[in-house]
Amino acid sequence: MSCEELTSKMKMARQNGIVQPLLTDLYQITMAYAYWKSGKVNDVAVFDLFFRTNPFQGEFTIFAGLEECLKFLVNFHYSDSDIEYLKQTLPDNIEPEFFAYLKDLTCKDIKLSAIEEGSVVFPRVPLLRVEGPLIIAQLIETTLLTLVNFASLMATNAARYRMVAGKNVSLLEFGLRRAQGPDGGLSASKYAYIGGFDGTSNVLAGKFFDIPVKGTHAHSFVTSFSSLDDIHSVTLRHAETEVPYNLLELSTEWRKRVSAIVDISPEEASDGELAALISYAIAFPTGFLALVDTYDVKRYNIQGLPSRHRQHMNGHSGYNSNCGSNDTRLLKSPIHSTYGYSTVERTLRSGLLNFCAVALALNDCGYRAVGIRIDSGDLAYLSVLARESFDQIAEAFKLPWFSKLTIVASNDINEETILSLNEQGHKIDCFGIGTHLVTCQRQPALGCVYKLVEINGQPRIKLSQDVGKVTIPGHKEAYRLFGADGHALIDLLQRSSEPAPEVGQKVLCRHPFQESKRAYVIPSKVEHLYKECWKDGNVCIKPKPLLEVRARVQSSLRTLRQDIKRNLNPTPYKVAVSDDLYCFIHDLWLQNAPIGELS
Amino acid sequence: MSCEELTSKMKMARQNGIVQPLLTDLYQITMAYAYWKSGKVNDVAVFDLFFRTNPFQGEFTIFAGLEECLKFLVNFHYSDSDIEYLKQTLPDNIEPEFFAYLKDLTCKDIKLSAIEEGSVVFPRVPLLRVEGPLIIAQLIETTLLTLVNFASLMATNAARYRMVAGKNVSLLEFGLRRAQGPDGGLSASKYAYIGGFDGTSNVLAGKFFDIPVKGTHAHSFVTSFSSLDDIHSVTLRHAETEVPYNLLELSTEWRKRVSAIVDISPEEASDGELAALISYAIAFPTGFLALVDTYDVKRYNIQGLPSRHRQHMNGHSGYNSNCGSNDTRLLKSPIHSTYGYSTVERTLRSGLLNFCAVALALNDCGYRAVGIRIDSGDLAYLSVLARESFDQIAEAFKLPWFSKLTIVASNDINEETILSLNEQGHKIDCFGIGTHLVTCQRQPALGCVYKLVEINGQPRIKLSQDVGKVTIPGHKEAYRLFGADGHALIDLLQRSSEPAPEVGQKVLCRHPFQESKRAYVIPSKVEHLYKECWKDGNVCIKPKPLLEVRARVQSSLRTLRQDIKRNLNPTPYKVAVSDDLYCFIHDLWLQNAPIGELS
Repeated sequence: MSCEELTSKMKMARQNGIVQPLLTDLYQITMAYAYWKSGKVNDVAVFDLFFRTNPFQGEFTIFAGLEECLKFLVNFHYSDSDIEYLKQTLPDNIEPEFFAYLKDLTCKDIKLSAIEEGSVVFPRVPLLRVEGPLIIAQLIETTLLTLVNFASLMATNAARYRMVAGKNVSLLEFGLRRAQGPDGGLSASKYAYIGGFDGTSNVLAGKFFDIPVKGTHAHSFVTSFSSLDDIHSVTLRHAETEVPYNLLELSTEWRKRVSAIVDISPEEASDGELAALISYAIAFPTGFLALVDTYDVKRYNIQGLPSRHRQHMNGHSGYNSNCGSNDTRLLKSPIHSTYGYSTVERTLRSGLLNFCAVALALNDCGYRAVGIRIDSGDLAYLSVLARESFDQIAEAFKLPWFSKLTIVASNDINEETILSLNEQGHKIDCFGIGTHLVTCQRQPALGCVYKLVEINGQPRIKLSQDVGKVTIPGHKEAYRLFGADGHALIDLLQRSSEPAPEVGQKVLCRHPFQESKRAYVIPSKVEHLYKECWKDGNVCIKPKPLLEVRARVQSSLRTLRQDIKRNLNPTPYKVAVSDDLYCFIHDLWLQNAPIGELS
Repeated sequence: MSCEELTSKMKMARQNGIVQPLLTDLYQITMAYAYWKSGKVNDVAVFDLFFRTNPFQGEFTIFAGLEECLKFLVNFHYSDSDIEYLKQTLPDNIEPEFFAYLKDLTCKDIKLSAIEEGSVVFPRVPLLRVEGPLIIAQLIETTLLTLVNFASLMATNAARYRMVAGKNVSLLEFGLRRAQGPDGGLSASKYAYIGGFDGTSNVLAGKFFDIPVKGTHAHSFVTSFSSLDDIHSVTLRHAETEVPYNLLELSTEWRKRVSAIVDISPEEASDGELAALISYAIAFPTGFLALVDTYDVKRYNIQGLPSRHRQHMNGHSGYNSNCGSNDTRLLKSPIHSTYGYSTVERTLRSGLLNFCAVALALNDCGYRAVGIRIDSGDLAYLSVLARESFDQIAEAFKLPWFSKLTIVASNDINEETILSLNEQGHKIDCFGIGTHLVTCQRQPALGCVYKLVEINGQPRIKLSQDVGKVTIPGHKEAYRLFGADGHALIDLLQRSSEPAPEVGQKVLCRHPFQESKRAYVIPSKVEHLYKECWKDGNVCIKPKPLLEVRARVQSSLRTLRQDIKRNLNPTPYKVAVSDDLYCFIHDLWLQNAPIGELS
């Protein structure tokens, strides 16, 4: 595809309607006028967009949001109503020619270079390098930051969840209702998918981004049925023979047969719940996944528990999801008295019995149930209990697939919850994750900044007593150096005038600010991190389907050593500068330092 | 205005394009099909939307988002492409009639009652009561939650900032770049304004919502000028006489005259900075507000400080904004050596000298400068230092208005920072607040839920071992009872069949779940909290301008006793139920409780 074709394709792509030039801080526009008025229309600048610290106390970040930045550049244009608004808002003395200048402004003279979207990235290495007219480069600052900050934060958060959950567990994003505004939810769905989630509950995200959408029913569905009389239609035709079956009769029959396995009597289970599950199964015979924790069983099992359960519960570690759970109080005291089940269990057993009954009835009609969702209580323990029941049913009725039923868990889950569940040996196949994921509760903002590093060919350095805040001046290139084992060793920033590092040649890598920290590296592979994405008013990279960006996240993460990715006390990945850039920084620093500077 | 006119006005109002029926969880749609398929099309339900805990460890919440909810109801409609997407997404067995049903669906049979937007609200008291067909009431759940949760969280956060900042300080929202997505930023601007902020940097929010927008320039503006040679034009005409003046000459002259007051020599100040400030002043002679902390002074003042400064600094409490500040290290050690200024001061003095010089030059041209912005360092101390210089200049040159120059502070400010600055006696007139405000860093999500409380006239109760999670069943009304001093005493939930409490008549108010907690209240005023907002397909309340909602927040907060609003250990406000509702809840509870229940 030619650049022009790519550009017009990008122009057609769906873009959030509010991503437009006025989605910015006013000071960008007042500065634009002051630059314009000061004869700086032809000044040429280089800005770096980067962050200073990885989020979530981790040592890596996933870069995302690039495609949205490109759409923004492609469509950058002040509408008549924008200009009208600015005329009313800015002081009266603004020269009318400035508004004419704004009216015609596009981003065609901007050149944008960027790291590939979905790559693992590190502090101080610019994610975007923006070159071009000072005024325009300044005008796009806030919007670029807005588009990169949350996207990258979200993708990083999702990637971290994926790492702790492991490859074999599905992760679904369920956070729309708690997201920071409608678009906070939509962005969360998109970047959670990029970061490694398997789907979302957000239907609009599914429609817009072609992300798999998932969901079955809520507690309110169950409570909207009071008794078996509430079932409207009981008939389900066999999947193959099309013979009509009475699903109510089959289910009540099965409920009797499996009650011993699930260890409660049919009378103890809720009939309203059974009615709800039968109705749901008739509506979705191929997609029967039931929420099973709506009701307590109706009566304690006075007889005590069969030995296998008692044994299991004694080994029960009492895990409780970190907040919002119902059972804290009970888990603190001995939970199994002569009255029988713990509260934790009671809440599951009615649903489990009803689910198994309907699932077995569905099986008679040629359908296989999908599984259950647990939304409260001790998720590790309940998942083990449920799996055990499934295994027993599989064995009792010679239905091996019953062992493989999906168990979804979805109560206020975060990274730590998953780590703790892993320790306890849960039997969960899928996590549905909401608030903590979509609001990035542990750290709700990434601190990307956008700094002027060169103007009219002259480097700019922002000094600060806090060395972490000193900017690395000038037009730079970034390289990732890999070792023989395929792992990334170090990211190296160089002045753009320097030759690229070469495979097999030793490169002096220096800490940007500490003279004593330096090392020679002989790379087995060198990756030039920047790609030109936008130049001469055209997009120069092919937009990738989300699925490819998602794959890039995983392949990029695989190049990181495990100790950099681990949850507890990860090792920092090294970011270095070339010797040439080191000297350049420190010469400039000296020129700009206060005379008499001691530190 | 008639209901029809209100409705069509609301239909025309700007709405975020993504607020549409598919902005929901898939399970709402699968449940809708299961309800439809189970013959529940004519079932009528009542849902309550409420939260269980106030955010930010406070004891109040501001309700916001209602107008967006109404726009959503007005425009609720599945487009052809929505239906097409759902057909592809749902299983093949879905009956085609269901899609026809969805296609024609509107919210006209829904009745929405709500507390007035901008009111102070409390846990368990429903903010919205949704009545109508079960299927439709269920389908709108997620979107309503999304629209209320963040709006209310944000308005509450902003109101808390306003309370700690006091009435006499301006508050500006500067958070767009760190917000959770573009619309997270836009929503933050809107609801921060409602909560009590005075303006935003977000230009699009200004355009959409008619919020005052503010902003001047960034550090990059200053660093884009290297020397006085970078000034393009030096001429400014006098505001009244229109006589042209040379602002560069005037400024350099003034710099010499005020250098003793600001206590650095002109040679120590940055010329690039002076060039930038002159250029900015020429562009905005009526709006000259300068960022003054870009450069260190060039040389230590070896002679030591004049006594007044030394005295001041000895009394300096060493406050440092809680994170991201430059000076932590230095503030831990004695900061004033024989070398002269602390780092904190050095960063301010160059900018302060240059600002005062340009402000005085502007004064010669008939313009009054606005003030300065400080974006780093010890904000309390620096503001005092700056104010002291302004006072001295005011006195030295007989310009009393110079004392009144605005000091804006904007470095990573949160509620605690402001409280701490207050303790130290700062001289700041305006805070610009970003990340902590717009992402609600202290608690990034409000946990509103949406619970079925009645179906076909039958109450529904959701039981839980956690009493806080038990829902209050049935169709209810809510009243706020006020004492003789005008303060709100208690919120009272009643069954809708009960007569409203009356002024001067004693009312028995009971804790919903603790039998022993009850009290008689004799209200001096009774406010019925619910207003019908949407009925028979029409909006029934007049949409209020943002400014009125903003005023409502402050007037509503004034009805709360101070101890409920205080920052540390606030007193919980009481929410009660009538005796009738109490008995109703507990009868239902008993009917639904497991036999043998002990707790």
